[in-house]
Amino acid sequence: MALNDFSIPRSVIWKDESISLLNQQNIPHVTEYLDLTTVEEVWDAIQTLKVRGAPAIGITAAFGLALAALQDSSETIEEFKLTIKKKRDYLASSRPTAVNLFWALDRLVACIADVKSINEGKTRIVQEAIQIQIEDEKVCRLIGEHALSVFNDGDRIMTICNAGSIATAKYGTALAPFYLAKEQNKELKVFACETRPVLQGSRLTTWELMQAGVDVTLITDNMAAHTIKSKNISAIIVGADRIAANGDTANKIGTFNLALLANAFNIPFYVAAPLSTFDPSIANGEQIPIEERNPKEVTELNGVQIAPEGVKVFNPAFDVTPNNLIAGIITEKGIISDNYQEEITQLFNR
Amino acid sequence: MALNDFSIPRSVIWKDESISLLNQQNIPHVTEYLDLTTVEEVWDAIQTLKVRGAPAIGITAAFGLALAALQDSSETIEEFKLTIKKKRDYLASSRPTAVNLFWALDRLVACIADVKSINEGKTRIVQEAIQIQIEDEKVCRLIGEHALSVFNDGDRIMTICNAGSIATAKYGTALAPFYLAKEQNKELKVFACETRPVLQGSRLTTWELMQAGVDVTLITDNMAAHTIKSKNISAIIVGADRIAANGDTANKIGTFNLALLANAFNIPFYVAAPLSTFDPSIANGEQIPIEERNPKEVTELNGVQIAPEGVKVFNPAFDVTPNNLIAGIITEKGIISDNYQEEITQLFNR
Repeated sequence: MALNDFSIPRSVIWKDESISLLNQQNIPHVTEYLDLTTVEEVWDAIQTLKVRGAPAIGITAAFGLALAALQDSSETIEEFKLTIKKKRDYLASSRPTAVNLFWALDRLVACIADVKSINEGKTRIVQEAIQIQIEDEKVCRLIGEHALSVFNDGDRIMTICNAGSIATAKYGTALAPFYLAKEQNKELKVFACETRPVLQGSRLTTWELMQAGVDVTLITDNMAAHTIKSKNISAIIVGADRIAANGDTANKIGTFNLALLANAFNIPFYVAAPLSTFDPSIANGEQIPIEERNPKEVTELNGVQIAPEGVKVFNPAFDVTPNNLIAGIITEKGIISDNYQEEITQLFNR
Repeated sequence: MALNDFSIPRSVIWKDESISLLNQQNIPHVTEYLDLTTVEEVWDAIQTLKVRGAPAIGITAAFGLALAALQDSSETIEEFKLTIKKKRDYLASSRPTAVNLFWALDRLVACIADVKSINEGKTRIVQEAIQIQIEDEKVCRLIGEHALSVFNDGDRIMTICNAGSIATAKYGTALAPFYLAKEQNKELKVFACETRPVLQGSRLTTWELMQAGVDVTLITDNMAAHTIKSKNISAIIVGADRIAANGDTANKIGTFNLALLANAFNIPFYVAAPLSTFDPSIANGEQIPIEERNPKEVTELNGVQIAPEGVKVFNPAFDVTPNNLIAGIITEKGIISDNYQEEITQLFNR
């Protein structure tokens, strides 16, 4: 297959009168883009996890609010602004804890604060929503460029979960260097951990890398140590859900395992994340709350019971990797790798 | 529930004209004992993993050879011995790396070396097969007693795969101390890793411990690090498929991960295994062949595809834990924990 037969999939595309949304719940079986035309359909898509990944959710919600704005038939600018606020609250209720969701919606509400006409308001909201996507794509590309600088042609690199293109505007965070390597005809081989219990690695990461023609091999999470040793893995790169002021990083459960293994094998462990993932109000990882999810995620798969009825389950959704295990945090503004506390403060001042 | 409402399940039972075999592939949904009457059925049961666990496979194969002996219609003792050798080779081909399988079969072949009549040969083989099971139960109980001596009442202990009662004659190896603790009214809490891809932990270990009323909590394999830290795990104990002359241990994929994590958290990592698991002909772990299994074990679950069609998969069935990560190898003759090379030699001379 020629290089241009491959493409990097996107999670969501603005179509002027509708949104084209990749239904991530049907991947890898069906590549289906849903045509969403109403704010209710967008709310439903977010709520039922058809779109996932903090940046992708934010962009989708922004596009939803833009659709609502275009379709609004208010007669005064005050009425228009009130409608937008109501629709903002409605969309914000689709996922209770998604910080990017609120951030994107509030940015749209703020952008019409001083507009004088409904038409101007509609135009601004649409432009601002598109701008959020453009900025995220740019951020991801920059992260990818910085990340690529720490890898060598031919490297074999391990990742977990899906910090990928379909979780963002494009490219992703941890997966961005693999797409940029492909563009530059460098060969990075990816080993994707399947990421139990929800299998984002096997369902999504392998799928999107294969779409783009990136060399990817799937393993189960417990194969990591043997794979690092027998396949000469040279680095591990992961995304992040939240980074504390000292660099401690909360990410998908299993990340902490990999960080400890990287340390044991003396290979670098990288976190790739935009500045928006940092939460300087949290001093360290001990203060990051760890969500525990439904035991059925562990005991059932595709509705089939895979463990005894009534078994006790511990199902933490995230774990925290302490900063001392992280060789570098790769952001759109560069890589920090030492004295995280100080460097994170400097990063925000750049 | 009263203590005696619980019981420790068995993998295989000799029924004189057949073998009653727990179909471990249908657990935890159905507790089904298969009635095997021919050596072909026994071969198939071993090959299709209906029975698993090195000692249980050895006992089942021995019972299979005993069935073959009983059903044999040779007319001379030479012919009989030749048939037994052929059936031995046939049964030995059911699993390529199971050392107990070869050991048990060879023991049966050896026990008829000097018999003079076919009837005597048949009787000897049946007795020897039953004896192997009796000895294994005794061995497991001794391993359990030694293992229990390194744990304290109230300890929380992690395990992987199923080195349990249904993998042996009774009690298991790594799980034996939990049953003995229960007998002695001591409370050990078990954290069982689900053990992808075949899920022996979630399907089997939780099931058999729950049958016996042992406190068990299920986690996915990638939760190990977070669980060790947040649940104060005090030790890890695993079984073994094969132990080299220097103590390097091949066991279910994921074991090496746990050994590295135990080392990182400075908690002891124990291997529980009978002497029959040792292979002094293998100098070290590098020489242990690692079976790679069907990629579908990783990409499908209960017949449902969970990864993209055609994705590359690495599916090693085992990994090797180097001796320096092992705090102790717990055998029926005691615990060795230092200078494995020398102690293993001494162990065989005791």
